[in-house]
Amino acid sequence: MEKFDLYILGCGSALPTGRHYPTSQVLNIREKLFMIDCAEGTQLQLRRQKLKFSRLNHIFISHLHGDHCFGLIGMLSTFDLLGRTSKLHIYSPGEDLEKLMRPWISYFCRSIGYDIVFHAINSKEEAIVYEDRSLTVSTIPLKHRVPCCGFLFREKSPLPHIRRDMIDFLGIPFYAINAIKQGAGWTDAEGRIWRHEELVTAADTGRSYAYCSDTVYRPQLSEIVKGVDLLFHESTFADDALKRAKETYHSTARQAATVAKNAEVKRLIIGHFSARYEDEHQLLEEAKSVFADTILAKEGLKISL
Amino acid sequence: MEKFDLYILGCGSALPTGRHYPTSQVLNIREKLFMIDCAEGTQLQLRRQKLKFSRLNHIFISHLHGDHCFGLIGMLSTFDLLGRTSKLHIYSPGEDLEKLMRPWISYFCRSIGYDIVFHAINSKEEAIVYEDRSLTVSTIPLKHRVPCCGFLFREKSPLPHIRRDMIDFLGIPFYAINAIKQGAGWTDAEGRIWRHEELVTAADTGRSYAYCSDTVYRPQLSEIVKGVDLLFHESTFADDALKRAKETYHSTARQAATVAKNAEVKRLIIGHFSARYEDEHQLLEEAKSVFADTILAKEGLKISL
Repeated sequence: MEKFDLYILGCGSALPTGRHYPTSQVLNIREKLFMIDCAEGTQLQLRRQKLKFSRLNHIFISHLHGDHCFGLIGMLSTFDLLGRTSKLHIYSPGEDLEKLMRPWISYFCRSIGYDIVFHAINSKEEAIVYEDRSLTVSTIPLKHRVPCCGFLFREKSPLPHIRRDMIDFLGIPFYAINAIKQGAGWTDAEGRIWRHEELVTAADTGRSYAYCSDTVYRPQLSEIVKGVDLLFHESTFADDALKRAKETYHSTARQAATVAKNAEVKRLIIGHFSARYEDEHQLLEEAKSVFADTILAKEGLKISL
Repeated sequence: MEKFDLYILGCGSALPTGRHYPTSQVLNIREKLFMIDCAEGTQLQLRRQKLKFSRLNHIFISHLHGDHCFGLIGMLSTFDLLGRTSKLHIYSPGEDLEKLMRPWISYFCRSIGYDIVFHAINSKEEAIVYEDRSLTVSTIPLKHRVPCCGFLFREKSPLPHIRRDMIDFLGIPFYAINAIKQGAGWTDAEGRIWRHEELVTAADTGRSYAYCSDTVYRPQLSEIVKGVDLLFHESTFADDALKRAKETYHSTARQAATVAKNAEVKRLIIGHFSARYEDEHQLLEEAKSVFADTILAKEGLKISL
């Protein structure tokens, strides 16, 4: 199966600890890398996980808090030092990121050899912001202290499988197979018409990953991330800080698990841990009491879908 | 003895590796922290070395390349989140750093509770840029691709030591001792005058640390850092890249050691290692062949003077 791998580069929140890097993730989908958030230290973590800088052309920033974007300037500058020439696309809510970054890029990357295209996205709507032959990325509106959205990565349903037995039985030539995969039928030598459905078996379902950070508890998220293979939902706090979670527009592990349960997702991964938790077992247990198939994010973790 | 400790937070150069953080150091001088350069990841390294954020009020930036200043914004933002109220002083060549930082500080630290004072320094002259009761910090002109200077931290000579035997012999009262330390003599009960020099022994020499990064080889540095207790000199390259060192305005380990030898410093520490060296023993050996008392910088290293 083609790759659909998630790498956790950092899963802490704003205050630094010796245990976590702040937020960044990378998806490797069919050898294209997609970055989600880019906090301080991201380029170091990319190196450590031996992810190839040259395969990264698309970066999605959920919101403009430092613990989600302060790693951009260092990484862009490194790309320049390494002689990058291919275009880099950066998606973020509104136009502020470009306004902030342009003067720094001009100053620190004086003779930059590649284009950076900033895409201003509307964080309040569900919309496709990226699409290629095999994938769509769409926004997931979140509610935080500043404009913020998550991202839903959904593989397009591949084509159906050809039935080898029928191909052999009917002697269908190689050149006709692609048309049949795309929906065509077949007329045999005696003029009998075979319907498309008789010649193929159902396609695999496209895989999906939803990233939701940072956000106050939003029950309506369940509808948007319905049935995804893997949901990342921030869990900055545990039950002991329910009030603080609400005040700071963050979620608890239990709330993350409630979204996962109502959405009937296959698996939940929680992260964006507050510096107050020495280890995150309390968060894991609280989440598991609602949704069993939960794991903790951790730097260096790789999950293959 | 009062503290005069150097901490290495990062000693790599611009390109990220899994082995080093880019450049940052901290001096703890009598419980005041002084930071020199502040690359990406510095706040994480401060945390790991358990250095107290609240004791840091002065940051010296050698030059405006990303691998020496990209960690500032994250650290300033963290100070704000932690409720800092005391003033922070940042020294750097020219006024560019303030121009670059102000819009980011306004955006990311919206209701910041402390003042940041940017000091524009002239990197071409040797001048005292900071002074307190026990310390001066002065600039060391360096030659790099952009305006750049090192910093010389020099403890002021403390007061001389009182001769306990003379105090007892003459029955000098406690209240008179400070005046004698400051230079006064003493007249005893019989009217005999004792000179200051008869009552004290020589003061300790003030300790000194010189930081020189980044720079092309400059023989004249030896005069400026003459006899310091510890010299940090960048050694981006080894002999095998002598030409590249010159082209990029960096130094080799041998050149760093030559400066140390001619300056008759007590110890040399080399750092700012290029990503091309898998380990730095080659650099260490080349430096030691010229100046024996050389060590390699390393994250987590602490040196007490």
